[in-house]
Amino acid sequence: MPKIFLCVLIATVFAGPAFGESQVKPAPNGITVPDGYQDWRLISSSYREDNKTLRVILGNDKAIEAALAGQTNPWPDGAIIGKLVWKEDRHPQWPSAIIPGELSHIEFMIKDQEKYADTVNWGFARWVGMELTPYGESADFAKECVNCHIPVKDKDYVFSKISPLPR
Amino acid sequence: MPKIFLCVLIATVFAGPAFGESQVKPAPNGITVPDGYQDWRLISSSYREDNKTLRVILGNDKAIEAALAGQTNPWPDGAIIGKLVWKEDRHPQWPSAIIPGELSHIEFMIKDQEKYADTVNWGFARWVGMELTPYGESADFAKECVNCHIPVKDKDYVFSKISPLPR
Repeated sequence: MPKIFLCVLIATVFAGPAFGESQVKPAPNGITVPDGYQDWRLISSSYREDNKTLRVILGNDKAIEAALAGQTNPWPDGAIIGKLVWKEDRHPQWPSAIIPGELSHIEFMIKDQEKYADTVNWGFARWVGMELTPYGESADFAKECVNCHIPVKDKDYVFSKISPLPR
Repeated sequence: MPKIFLCVLIATVFAGPAFGESQVKPAPNGITVPDGYQDWRLISSSYREDNKTLRVILGNDKAIEAALAGQTNPWPDGAIIGKLVWKEDRHPQWPSAIIPGELSHIEFMIKDQEKYADTVNWGFARWVGMELTPYGESADFAKECVNCHIPVKDKDYVFSKISPLPR
């Protein structure tokens, strides 16, 4: 086998994503799933009666520090807010408790005034289901995100406040 | 002023709790508010229709590691599960979203087979409101906690499972 083909073969084998989140495709605007979001700290939670989902909102360190300092209008560049969304379920031993069922999707807002100037200074991305299928057909999907966030335009397009806790 | 009185005076001034959580009284069974629980990682969330509260369940490192490994029947000694409970509110810009309002209470389960053998191997504690008033008049309050957790006796008395997320 000629050396050049062998090199291409090896490069092809090793270039491909192999494990875990590296297999997940980026959103159509190029955003990839933020690393380690599962371990981020709590901002808030919600229950949406309209679409029967339970949500937990987490933030990276930059976002949490900004939220605790009340520096969220605007949020600082580098802040990332993650929303984890589950379809509702009922607790089998406590039926009046609505609990997370199947994962609906995870979604993120990444603040960067320069990079995301076209989408109100936030990079939006969503992945659907446990298989994390990127949401949207083209980068235009983010217009849908922005439209939904217009009601909180004067809160720098963010619905969530940090939930009150003694600190 | 005699030196002995001065020493007593200084000791009294410096011995008393001065800042933040050190001012919070322990629960009647002697348990104190776990340090840094606000930064713990996510286990789950819930919305209780019966008492109109939103809840987020966090765990210390030992609890999260056990939950991710499926080692929760029984949970290991040292695991602490914290439940943060807010009265429901409505999002002013998205009225079908129930969001955390005023803090109702925070409560914890601390696993220690030896120390808490009298209360199903868990130390229970609850503090009410932003002022963190300890719940219960005597150590007997924990019987109330245990009674409420009996429906999940076969889950080591814990209602929450870790919410599904790709890892």
